[in-house]
Amino acid sequence: MVGGGFVKHLLRNHDLIAERTGVDLQIKKIAEKDFSRVPAELSSRTTDDWKSLVNDPEVQIVVELMGGKNLALEVAKAALTAKKPLVTANKALLAHAGEELFGLADKNQTGIYFEASVGGGIPIIKALREGLCANHISSIHGIINGTCNYILTRMANEGKAYEEIIVEAKKLGYAEADESLDVDGIDTAHKAAILASLAYGFWVKMEDIHIEGIRTISALDISYAQKLGYTIKLLAIIKPDENNAAQVRVHPTLIPSDSVLASVSGVYNAVAVEGDVVGKTLYYGRGAGADATASAVLCDVAEAAADLGVNKSSRFTSHDIYGKVAKIDQVETRYYVRLSALDQPGVLAQVATIFGKHGIGISSVYQPEEHSDETVPLLMVLDKAREAKFQDAYSEIKQLAVIKEPCQAIRLEDFS
Amino acid sequence: MVGGGFVKHLLRNHDLIAERTGVDLQIKKIAEKDFSRVPAELSSRTTDDWKSLVNDPEVQIVVELMGGKNLALEVAKAALTAKKPLVTANKALLAHAGEELFGLADKNQTGIYFEASVGGGIPIIKALREGLCANHISSIHGIINGTCNYILTRMANEGKAYEEIIVEAKKLGYAEADESLDVDGIDTAHKAAILASLAYGFWVKMEDIHIEGIRTISALDISYAQKLGYTIKLLAIIKPDENNAAQVRVHPTLIPSDSVLASVSGVYNAVAVEGDVVGKTLYYGRGAGADATASAVLCDVAEAAADLGVNKSSRFTSHDIYGKVAKIDQVETRYYVRLSALDQPGVLAQVATIFGKHGIGISSVYQPEEHSDETVPLLMVLDKAREAKFQDAYSEIKQLAVIKEPCQAIRLEDFS
Repeated sequence: MVGGGFVKHLLRNHDLIAERTGVDLQIKKIAEKDFSRVPAELSSRTTDDWKSLVNDPEVQIVVELMGGKNLALEVAKAALTAKKPLVTANKALLAHAGEELFGLADKNQTGIYFEASVGGGIPIIKALREGLCANHISSIHGIINGTCNYILTRMANEGKAYEEIIVEAKKLGYAEADESLDVDGIDTAHKAAILASLAYGFWVKMEDIHIEGIRTISALDISYAQKLGYTIKLLAIIKPDENNAAQVRVHPTLIPSDSVLASVSGVYNAVAVEGDVVGKTLYYGRGAGADATASAVLCDVAEAAADLGVNKSSRFTSHDIYGKVAKIDQVETRYYVRLSALDQPGVLAQVATIFGKHGIGISSVYQPEEHSDETVPLLMVLDKAREAKFQDAYSEIKQLAVIKEPCQAIRLEDFS
Repeated sequence: MVGGGFVKHLLRNHDLIAERTGVDLQIKKIAEKDFSRVPAELSSRTTDDWKSLVNDPEVQIVVELMGGKNLALEVAKAALTAKKPLVTANKALLAHAGEELFGLADKNQTGIYFEASVGGGIPIIKALREGLCANHISSIHGIINGTCNYILTRMANEGKAYEEIIVEAKKLGYAEADESLDVDGIDTAHKAAILASLAYGFWVKMEDIHIEGIRTISALDISYAQKLGYTIKLLAIIKPDENNAAQVRVHPTLIPSDSVLASVSGVYNAVAVEGDVVGKTLYYGRGAGADATASAVLCDVAEAAADLGVNKSSRFTSHDIYGKVAKIDQVETRYYVRLSALDQPGVLAQVATIFGKHGIGISSVYQPEEHSDETVPLLMVLDKAREAKFQDAYSEIKQLAVIKEPCQAIRLEDFS
């Protein structure tokens, strides 16, 4: 898919790229299992043996667009070992083997170019490590999975359930047949690992990232959030933690509806980056698709060629160490809570007492008129509290005789 | 102002920049008229003789942050003639003398770095010419003057008149004592010239840019626009024109309220860029202020240093020719029109007949209930039409006996 887009646009915009960057990009060889997908004019340069491509002395830059983690890792290692710069759009590969691959690149004095790995065509990698190079990164809040944002946007606009929208999203090609990589937040976490590495100068382990997906989000909570002035988005959140660790977490999040990030709808992606010098910035565009991704891959290939032209392995320093991620139960966040409470006096007092006992302030309470069967919805927005404390209080509240299922708790970021 | 921010953040974040980019930036000399503005630790390196700075063999990069067009031009030319890269935040300088300065830089095999000249800390120059280097630019829509956006946002939120808000904006430091450079659209036009040069590879002459400011915008039109689903922003608009020319224009514009650009409020800037490969993208942040601008200047200095390290004058090609700008009367746009009509039958028919005669379609009509004295407001949103045709029709309509003053016409972009 992305390979096809890359080839198409390179052939089409070759002269423009040459004019702007001074490099003359040529496709020397294509390694492909299905030759029918290669344009006729390039069929003579197509092989099913990727090793012959990587080892061809005329091939100066290797572009890996196959995806997946196993064969892609083998190709990436072979390219770097052959001292050839690697261009890749593969976020899973970098999230799992970034430390190893960047180490190998350093050892072989070559570079890895990965603009297409996060945010599709949005030049977010370039913005973070070049444009904002003078900034300590205070926070990153990213909507970086188009499938999840498409589903949440439709749920918000149409008031329909997740189960209904996911079926339509699959039919329309906005969700894969196996949707779990997207809707369970894994893909967002892969990209979060890459963004965190740029913000902090170290890699984080996938297993250290707290990940929640969007399957449990109901149209009801989206609608209540709207009434309270918030929009629910699946966010990657990256922040420094007080204990010299990095917060890297992925979960559905209430954000203020009047923020620019909340206005990002459908399949679009956006990454809000706050720096200590620049203040708040935001980058927006299509986060996936053959065309948008090709734009980023082409930029990377032009960069790699420019670096080869001056014998530089890469313009910016890379890093190949792991850093500490803050444990989720130590992280301080705010929460939106929806409880199903028996419609009787004294319930609010019981709930408030438990939050109070755990030192958690209640910022606002909302009890809508409507109710189903014996319970009424009781909505609360809480002040900042440590996750562990919140979870203790929340379990205790759910055990109250006056509180029934379903209950829901979703974290909230107010960008303050 | 910006100089102070630059020095402060360079001293503070020197090690971070060195770690990320591999360059060790040192302030060798500061040319300043008012020595009291220089931090004590740098006073021994301060001079009031800028020539001694430019000609100091130890000075490798010249950073011009004085602003203005005359002395700044002299400094810029001296630096380039001395074969030293020039970093500048000076949009007026580049808009007026870009062609000459880039020609001089090429002749002397050195570079001009100007990230801070548009959008303050937003890395929009880098995004356009590096991140999107594989794209033909289909359109740019920029909110690139914080003062105007602040005024329009407050007018929209508070329903107050321009005259009232500008007074408060001056008191609060959001507008200069002489506001004309900002509110008349000149500053936006300077920046539009720079963005256009990156999009098209040629410079445009300031006198070829159609410029309208925000002084004539009323709270009434902002409120009517909102009812029709639009928000009024001062935009720089850059698009290819059908006749191989470039459209470069600055004027108040109605844009759809549900667009991301419409959600950009207060002093913030945003630039929406559409490319033929990447599709729609957008870049957002603080467009002015010592800190945000310093972020961009620091990025440029690090880039210039990296380029010096590999003996490259600049990574991307520059251009020193002028290109053709489409005349505003040849441009096709949509219009929002507010007429003050006598409250009697047949008025709409007379107006519609004139638009029809000039081949201009009416997309929607809205007549609010309220009215003052003898007239009623009649609002229309028109289909796309050539400017000259619209102006003919509009003058003719304003001469109708049933149409009184005030009337207002504001262009509209639907991003389709």
